[in-house]
Amino acid sequence: MNIEHKTPVTVIGLGRMGQALAGTFLKAGHPTTVWNRTASKADELVGQGATPAPTIGDAFKASSLAIICLTDYQAMYEVLGASDVELDGTTLINLTSGDSAQARDAARWAEQRGARYLDGAVMAIPPTIGTAEAVLLHSGPQSDFEAHKSTLDTLGTVAYLGADHGLAALYDVAGLAMMWSVLNAWLQGTALLRTAGVDAATYAPFAQQIAAGVAKWLPGYAEQIDRGSFPAEVSALETDARSMAHLIEESEAVGVNAELPKLFKAMADRAIAAGHGGEQYPVLIEEFGKPRAD
Amino acid sequence: MNIEHKTPVTVIGLGRMGQALAGTFLKAGHPTTVWNRTASKADELVGQGATPAPTIGDAFKASSLAIICLTDYQAMYEVLGASDVELDGTTLINLTSGDSAQARDAARWAEQRGARYLDGAVMAIPPTIGTAEAVLLHSGPQSDFEAHKSTLDTLGTVAYLGADHGLAALYDVAGLAMMWSVLNAWLQGTALLRTAGVDAATYAPFAQQIAAGVAKWLPGYAEQIDRGSFPAEVSALETDARSMAHLIEESEAVGVNAELPKLFKAMADRAIAAGHGGEQYPVLIEEFGKPRAD
Repeated sequence: MNIEHKTPVTVIGLGRMGQALAGTFLKAGHPTTVWNRTASKADELVGQGATPAPTIGDAFKASSLAIICLTDYQAMYEVLGASDVELDGTTLINLTSGDSAQARDAARWAEQRGARYLDGAVMAIPPTIGTAEAVLLHSGPQSDFEAHKSTLDTLGTVAYLGADHGLAALYDVAGLAMMWSVLNAWLQGTALLRTAGVDAATYAPFAQQIAAGVAKWLPGYAEQIDRGSFPAEVSALETDARSMAHLIEESEAVGVNAELPKLFKAMADRAIAAGHGGEQYPVLIEEFGKPRAD
Repeated sequence: MNIEHKTPVTVIGLGRMGQALAGTFLKAGHPTTVWNRTASKADELVGQGATPAPTIGDAFKASSLAIICLTDYQAMYEVLGASDVELDGTTLINLTSGDSAQARDAARWAEQRGARYLDGAVMAIPPTIGTAEAVLLHSGPQSDFEAHKSTLDTLGTVAYLGADHGLAALYDVAGLAMMWSVLNAWLQGTALLRTAGVDAATYAPFAQQIAAGVAKWLPGYAEQIDRGSFPAEVSALETDARSMAHLIEESEAVGVNAELPKLFKAMADRAIAAGHGGEQYPVLIEEFGKPRAD
């Protein structure tokens, strides 16, 4: 492979994720410069052909595309704010975990220094980087994303979400909400079935089928939210609340934790009390869309 | 269609679901006898060819297979306990909503009267009865299920879960837990994205993909539960708890309800406090498997 034809890349931050990102670029033949505050974390990558930057300033001089993967935004400001760092003309892709406000602030900060800035989120564990299973979300100017998409494609399944730099962080936490919800619902069901001697492996395919089946309803339900109109085409919220009560009662009867269905019902009951009992489930967006003091 | 070759069926209880069941049998050519406490509810079905039973006793004399679809188990005992009802030799398939204990009690009650008894649960809304989308769960003696499977197939996708009569009710509520969880996670994500002006229809396919993707992990995670061993192959619970904190913080920062992620984190924190922070998520089965006073 002639590595001269591949875009040079700098990777800043060599935790487990940073190492996986740099290693994947190296394997794909990208000239890869690496930097980490504790320099020894670069040793294995250097053995694989990475160039260690002596200083953080050198790291940015080596490539016009830099992937940032640090512990948090505070660490990012410390590292990128060093006196020898020249960002003018550099494209930063910041995969550091943070929230949407931090991403928007960082974009302004970077752009003031002449950098192009995309915020990103990695929905993957390090061993899957470089495979289609790894999903990498990006938000910021579309032209900056398009300019580097072929390089980013090396890392996994790459998605562009929009110009608002906060979108990658928001989609990331929305995805987390779905992940924990599916896992918790599966645990709730597994606990229920275990009371009848059904093992987890027997129940899992059923849970998988229900999750995938319900997920198919979402685009249709989304139309109700966007229209702001919730006719009970499938079922009314007050009927749903009775089925939640049934889930609570069965859980308690067999000695299984009922906190999760109780929260579901409490939220549904609030919407019913607000007069939405005859409407369809997505009307609950009004409950989700407002904070609750507790 | 020569209806003489189809098994005669009696449907007891003509609410919306009972009417859909009877109507589906009729369309498939089954001689169908119907009974309802308020007889007028049979009128439309009689117009379609159903035979109205003058008394509940006559309803059971008409067919050796009876589908029961009443409001609750109390109603079932009242109807089936009437003095003119002879159940000896009848197969009852009870689709009345109830819990696993009620199903097991009803099975004993029916068997003492010489009936064969399967408990069932309908995971569907009435308009889908007769299509593959309608899932009907059954539990009880396998031979009784097999004897009537071809008739039951008329109603939708039919599943047999095992000999324990309580299984249909347990799988049903486990499925409800998954359904509400996927819908609530989607609403949580939709509320988060709406703060950045992303509409529900734009976000829905992303949520659908995450739900279906996470569901694929369940069979593998189930093996950990059945082995009772939870090595952190993908991620440790204490790392998961940090990502939950991140979801809570982002939700609160953008003014979205955070009750759901707070409950997720409270449960994870309890497992961590119990010494499971270095283990993998399915170790939470121990929290789900025990009741919590609150």
